[in-house]
Amino acid sequence: MSPAAETLVADLKRANVLASVSSLLSWDEQVHLPPASAARRGEQSALLAELHHAAATAPRIGDSLALLEAAGASAPADEQVLRRHARKDYDRLTKLPAEFVREKARLDSEAYHAWAEARAAKDFPKFAPFLQRQLDLAKREAELLGLPDGYDYALDKHDPGMTAARIEALFTELKRDLVPLARRIAGNRQPTKRDALRGFPVEAQREFLRAVTTALGFDYSRGRIDVSLHPFCSGDGHDIRMTTRFDADNPLDSLFSAIHETGHGLYEQGLPREWIGTPLGEAVGMGIHESQSRLWENQVARSTAFWQHWEPKFRAAFAPRLDGVSFDELLRTVNEVAPTLIRVDADEVTYNLHIVLRFELERRLFRGDLAVADVPAAWNALSQELLGLTPAHDGEGCLQDIHWSGGAFGYFPSYCLGNMIAAQLWYTVLAALPGLEADFAAGRYGRLLGWLRTQIHERGRRLETEELVRAVTGEGISPRHLVRYLGERYGG
Amino acid sequence: MSPAAETLVADLKRANVLASVSSLLSWDEQVHLPPASAARRGEQSALLAELHHAAATAPRIGDSLALLEAAGASAPADEQVLRRHARKDYDRLTKLPAEFVREKARLDSEAYHAWAEARAAKDFPKFAPFLQRQLDLAKREAELLGLPDGYDYALDKHDPGMTAARIEALFTELKRDLVPLARRIAGNRQPTKRDALRGFPVEAQREFLRAVTTALGFDYSRGRIDVSLHPFCSGDGHDIRMTTRFDADNPLDSLFSAIHETGHGLYEQGLPREWIGTPLGEAVGMGIHESQSRLWENQVARSTAFWQHWEPKFRAAFAPRLDGVSFDELLRTVNEVAPTLIRVDADEVTYNLHIVLRFELERRLFRGDLAVADVPAAWNALSQELLGLTPAHDGEGCLQDIHWSGGAFGYFPSYCLGNMIAAQLWYTVLAALPGLEADFAAGRYGRLLGWLRTQIHERGRRLETEELVRAVTGEGISPRHLVRYLGERYGG
Repeated sequence: MSPAAETLVADLKRANVLASVSSLLSWDEQVHLPPASAARRGEQSALLAELHHAAATAPRIGDSLALLEAAGASAPADEQVLRRHARKDYDRLTKLPAEFVREKARLDSEAYHAWAEARAAKDFPKFAPFLQRQLDLAKREAELLGLPDGYDYALDKHDPGMTAARIEALFTELKRDLVPLARRIAGNRQPTKRDALRGFPVEAQREFLRAVTTALGFDYSRGRIDVSLHPFCSGDGHDIRMTTRFDADNPLDSLFSAIHETGHGLYEQGLPREWIGTPLGEAVGMGIHESQSRLWENQVARSTAFWQHWEPKFRAAFAPRLDGVSFDELLRTVNEVAPTLIRVDADEVTYNLHIVLRFELERRLFRGDLAVADVPAAWNALSQELLGLTPAHDGEGCLQDIHWSGGAFGYFPSYCLGNMIAAQLWYTVLAALPGLEADFAAGRYGRLLGWLRTQIHERGRRLETEELVRAVTGEGISPRHLVRYLGERYGG
Repeated sequence: MSPAAETLVADLKRANVLASVSSLLSWDEQVHLPPASAARRGEQSALLAELHHAAATAPRIGDSLALLEAAGASAPADEQVLRRHARKDYDRLTKLPAEFVREKARLDSEAYHAWAEARAAKDFPKFAPFLQRQLDLAKREAELLGLPDGYDYALDKHDPGMTAARIEALFTELKRDLVPLARRIAGNRQPTKRDALRGFPVEAQREFLRAVTTALGFDYSRGRIDVSLHPFCSGDGHDIRMTTRFDADNPLDSLFSAIHETGHGLYEQGLPREWIGTPLGEAVGMGIHESQSRLWENQVARSTAFWQHWEPKFRAAFAPRLDGVSFDELLRTVNEVAPTLIRVDADEVTYNLHIVLRFELERRLFRGDLAVADVPAAWNALSQELLGLTPAHDGEGCLQDIHWSGGAFGYFPSYCLGNMIAAQLWYTVLAALPGLEADFAAGRYGRLLGWLRTQIHERGRRLETEELVRAVTGEGISPRHLVRYLGERYGG
């Protein structure tokens, strides 16, 4: 590496160490923090954020970037990857005036509380002015960076290279096929045994999910799993902190949450360790990240082959609670599909329609085709069109998600991109590794993980979202694999 | 407060926020860190230490100090307290050359590993050169700060105002009375029921110690207790992180460890919260800190009155395991006394003799009256004289403690000072609050805690160690209260 690249790497890694401490503070806040200690944690996190900002905007990073840019296309490929992403991040951090950053931080806090109150009161107009201000700020942020389109910028933040036009094309095709498919699947529903899965001791759940996630390949010597209200995966390949949650009357929730987070954790653990903190050792974006969690959670862990191995162990671990439940009934319960108004409760079929809805509204809001005041009506109409359900009030409609209160536009589409990419990777790996499902029936996941390591993880951010999909699968992102997969699994 | 004092407070608090993050990293390292993540934690801690050093040595702190010093004795008392301690800390951080600091950090790491190997090999000569270097550096550190005596400086670091001459006087008197007392107590030993305390479920131990420590007054809305190999108490009044450890066959260990750490935690929680991070909201020193943990652990929780309240609950929580153990037998087990070679396993009587031994050796090492090579022989002779036991090898003798490997000279005496001060406070509070032990028999500790709050906690660092003892008890530190207490409790 050139001296400039080496200096850049050292400076990025230094900033990343501070980011990793912030991440640990946040993990601790959600897992352990005593209730009255929140104000102190706020002080600690704010100071760490300030120091991280100072490290990530150090003038020497700008100098290194200028040197690398002068070298241009003659630089080694990896240096160009470093340069391209580091420039993007550096500009985002240095081109926004301090007054803008302060205004955004203030608004995030105010809007969060306004949203929480509005949701509790089922009263969208209380939240509307804050949504309007977040929308205005998001557009101004793009302008300040000299970018022509606010929504394209928001999407690119989460999934490098994606645009509103591209996602619109993908989602239009997906919607065309998925709405009727979801209706057919819902029409074919057979009863599940969810009500029989009650009284599963938490300690045994913990041991079982630990056995499963260890078998999937998670390295517990560099990570752990704890409990929080909402499951998440934080940290990096040096030290992954995942969470799940336990409900004695819903053992599948803790297990599938843990498997989902393990998918994220395996990606992080597979990124080149020596490059952690730099674009060569970071995830491509949220869509690819979500493709990893979804592939393990859905394609792998909801499959018949997976349960051929684990069902006897599950039955034994919780005996005699499954005595009245057959293998087929358990599998049907694992794969229950039922439309719901609430995104986070949705099954893997209708989940995508929740995302399509949110994307369409965000797209129209940014274009100016939809006024903030009209969001509830638009939401409810789309909900009826896509899901066949109309919210009784905004609390189960347009106020259900936290994202917009923080101005996190362009975030939702990643979930659905992740589902599409997971299915696309799935058919690719099935073709590449014959007999893969027989591995699962034997409780072995090493070939799958090895393939994901080589094809996805070890590449870091060398390719952008859709470039990576094309490199691995031979074509750009396409919704047809997801539609095919859902049809095959749920018999639509 | 003057503008200079306000600026100083803000700067000290800022540095303290970074120290509190370092402390949380260290807590997490001992409680949660995955084994292979240690190197990363090292990077995180090193960077935080660097940033803390930068914050604590900010030139503006020096400027504020100069302004306050110019105001001299005309400044308000609290400003003088701030100034005095902040100056001491600032000089320690700024007057040591960077090369010295680096050399010390390198030596700490090398000496730790040399000590661990030497201890495992029971081979003192392997460790001797590192002990010599630590001793040399400790003396040089005092010289660099312009202080005349290396050991006085080391003692003052842990207990402000204490000197080797003062501790020698205290320990000489203590030794005179305690050695024969310990012999008499050992001669009167009655059999305990320790062997009957087996198979106590950890979950029930956890609940029981939580009930006890809550009753003592620990505020779990600003703190928590977890598990680590060695119990400790970290954090501050904003967020205390204590630990204990569980052994199904030793339920008294987890309980008394938790009560000991609760004593530390109660002190921290009682320091004026608005001044945390400044000398007005910090503990006086280690001796006073230890007096708080010891008072709760020993004077309170080993008393008959304490167990009159808790014994029935203890019996019920673990029924039927105590069916063959009477109240008196349980109390005798709680108060078991038996000389041992290992300090950390010692009872509250002989523990003090372990400290006297270490102090005498440190004193002679610093004076030049003892060569490092002669430490094992001197250790063994003193061990026989004080404890009546001679180590079979250095692993259970002069290599047993980690402290010297890190150059932490002057640290051991604080433990014994804490025991002396605890007993002295005990007789003072018994006189001040008639019927106090009846409170304990009823499970009430509010009057005791309130008295400690007013007399000790709320004063922060306004007084030095012995000044504070004098202010509260009407006399300087005296060993006779400890000797009296041990005689009364153990019937010597």
